[in-house]
Amino acid sequence: MSFDIETLLQGDRRGLAKAITMAESKLDSHREQAQSLLEQILPHTGNSIRIGITGIPGVGKSTFIEAFGLHLIENGLKVAVLAVDPSSPITGGSIMGDKTRMEVLSRHPSAFIRPSPTGGALGGVAQKTRETMLLCEASGYDVILVETVGVGQSEYEVAGMVDFFLLLMLPNAGDELQGIKKGILELADAIAVNKADGDNQNMAKQSQRHYQNALALLQHGPFWKPEVVLCSGLNGGNIDQIWKMIQNYSDKSRQAGYFEHKRAQQNKEWMWRLVHELIDRRLKQNQSSRQLCNEMQQRVTAGQTTPYIAAHRIVESL
Amino acid sequence: MSFDIETLLQGDRRGLAKAITMAESKLDSHREQAQSLLEQILPHTGNSIRIGITGIPGVGKSTFIEAFGLHLIENGLKVAVLAVDPSSPITGGSIMGDKTRMEVLSRHPSAFIRPSPTGGALGGVAQKTRETMLLCEASGYDVILVETVGVGQSEYEVAGMVDFFLLLMLPNAGDELQGIKKGILELADAIAVNKADGDNQNMAKQSQRHYQNALALLQHGPFWKPEVVLCSGLNGGNIDQIWKMIQNYSDKSRQAGYFEHKRAQQNKEWMWRLVHELIDRRLKQNQSSRQLCNEMQQRVTAGQTTPYIAAHRIVESL
Repeated sequence: MSFDIETLLQGDRRGLAKAITMAESKLDSHREQAQSLLEQILPHTGNSIRIGITGIPGVGKSTFIEAFGLHLIENGLKVAVLAVDPSSPITGGSIMGDKTRMEVLSRHPSAFIRPSPTGGALGGVAQKTRETMLLCEASGYDVILVETVGVGQSEYEVAGMVDFFLLLMLPNAGDELQGIKKGILELADAIAVNKADGDNQNMAKQSQRHYQNALALLQHGPFWKPEVVLCSGLNGGNIDQIWKMIQNYSDKSRQAGYFEHKRAQQNKEWMWRLVHELIDRRLKQNQSSRQLCNEMQQRVTAGQTTPYIAAHRIVESL
Repeated sequence: MSFDIETLLQGDRRGLAKAITMAESKLDSHREQAQSLLEQILPHTGNSIRIGITGIPGVGKSTFIEAFGLHLIENGLKVAVLAVDPSSPITGGSIMGDKTRMEVLSRHPSAFIRPSPTGGALGGVAQKTRETMLLCEASGYDVILVETVGVGQSEYEVAGMVDFFLLLMLPNAGDELQGIKKGILELADAIAVNKADGDNQNMAKQSQRHYQNALALLQHGPFWKPEVVLCSGLNGGNIDQIWKMIQNYSDKSRQAGYFEHKRAQQNKEWMWRLVHELIDRRLKQNQSSRQLCNEMQQRVTAGQTTPYIAAHRIVESL
């Protein structure tokens, strides 16, 4: 697969799509080419705001992203939407599903929508999404929305690759059945109570107070206190306020020197995670190491040896 | 250092103290002896309930632990109290501090109080606390209280080694200045609003509702919903209720098959954490690997290469 970097840097959509396909390829030769490409384009990356968006199915994520994306485009920005779960609304099982769900946004020349990659390679879906994010930035996208379903492990991975993490919630105050996974509340830089329209408005306000109280229990950083806002993806209510809030966060974060620091930390942590993952792979690829790991794991879970002794034996076998 | 296992298994306090000192030793020969000892006593461990207790300074942790520990002893149980932070109340900077703070408990023959070990070895303080916990179990202690300050990283480590995690809070409803670190609320199997005595009682009830609302937002497991209870370490109010609650948790957890499963998972995760830590140490001990790691980390944080490429280069050097 040959590849022309200039095409990508000029913002050509097909060039971008081709680069992403190369990065997502399962062929080693493609992956190597993609890594070389990524290293070359690095100086042209990092100029977007990276926003993670999560919320349970039914919270109206697609409608919100469509409204939010179109608002950004009206402000002259180019928007990329990436999904990290196979079950994300924007993939919805089929490409047809996507187009029905984000009909206007998906056809707009300033928007680029990419369904979830399939996992498998080193670092899994998160690694591929990070690469796609960099390619979109090199291709001139100003805002990257990384979308996840909010019921699995992927929220932590998304929070580890974005500048701002937005949690969408339904307007049903105090309803514990919303099933937010433990820990997600604490990742949020803001909560948006969606569907705050029509008959829902009073309930949405109650929910807002409820979440404000919950967030108030948590420690926050020196320059930002997570906000709880009402919005409606359906009628566009407060969508502009949410964008202003994120810009405000971005400004304050840069002034505090936190914006770049956070990205550097994210990259460093990700590097070490990949180091450990590569070593685990090496252990699994070698048959005798694999057997030893399995044996040690069994002995440790059965209480026949200590994790300390087992870990030493595994590392000695490397 | 010679060591007689029978002395430990018979519950001799000096035998226990000696074994812990050996496990905490910085001498390799002692550490090896301790590992061998630990493997031998494993069949005699695991019979306690392991309870993590956290809360910010000023929440009345020492008073609570003293009252709770004495209540357990009145019920015929042997209690060990272990600290994981150097700044924990039970160490308080000096042994004198401990004794003043838990005067009655520390002198009781059915109690064993051990200040925080100093870190340094593989797995740090958490590893040593895990080892001390096993030694205490082998020595016949029925309840292990692992105490931490609730403002650092150690809460995650403690949650990873106990069966039940109790968060102590002050009775000041809605006061966001309590400064719980993000994530700690989500670790809690229960919150106890301490100092619910005298003039504080109304405020404590408000706080209880407040925390109940906050916890209701979080997902919980199939057999246990985190409870919020009032208590007073000072006058002993509800201390018996808290012990009943923990026993109830333990029963339900065992019936659901979760109790042993959780411990097996904790051991497995800890083993892999130690594997990675050992490999990181190996990388740091070799001068050329160390230089490469530093260089890669710098290049990654400066945006000069990708975490993927950097991780591959580091692992190739192993």
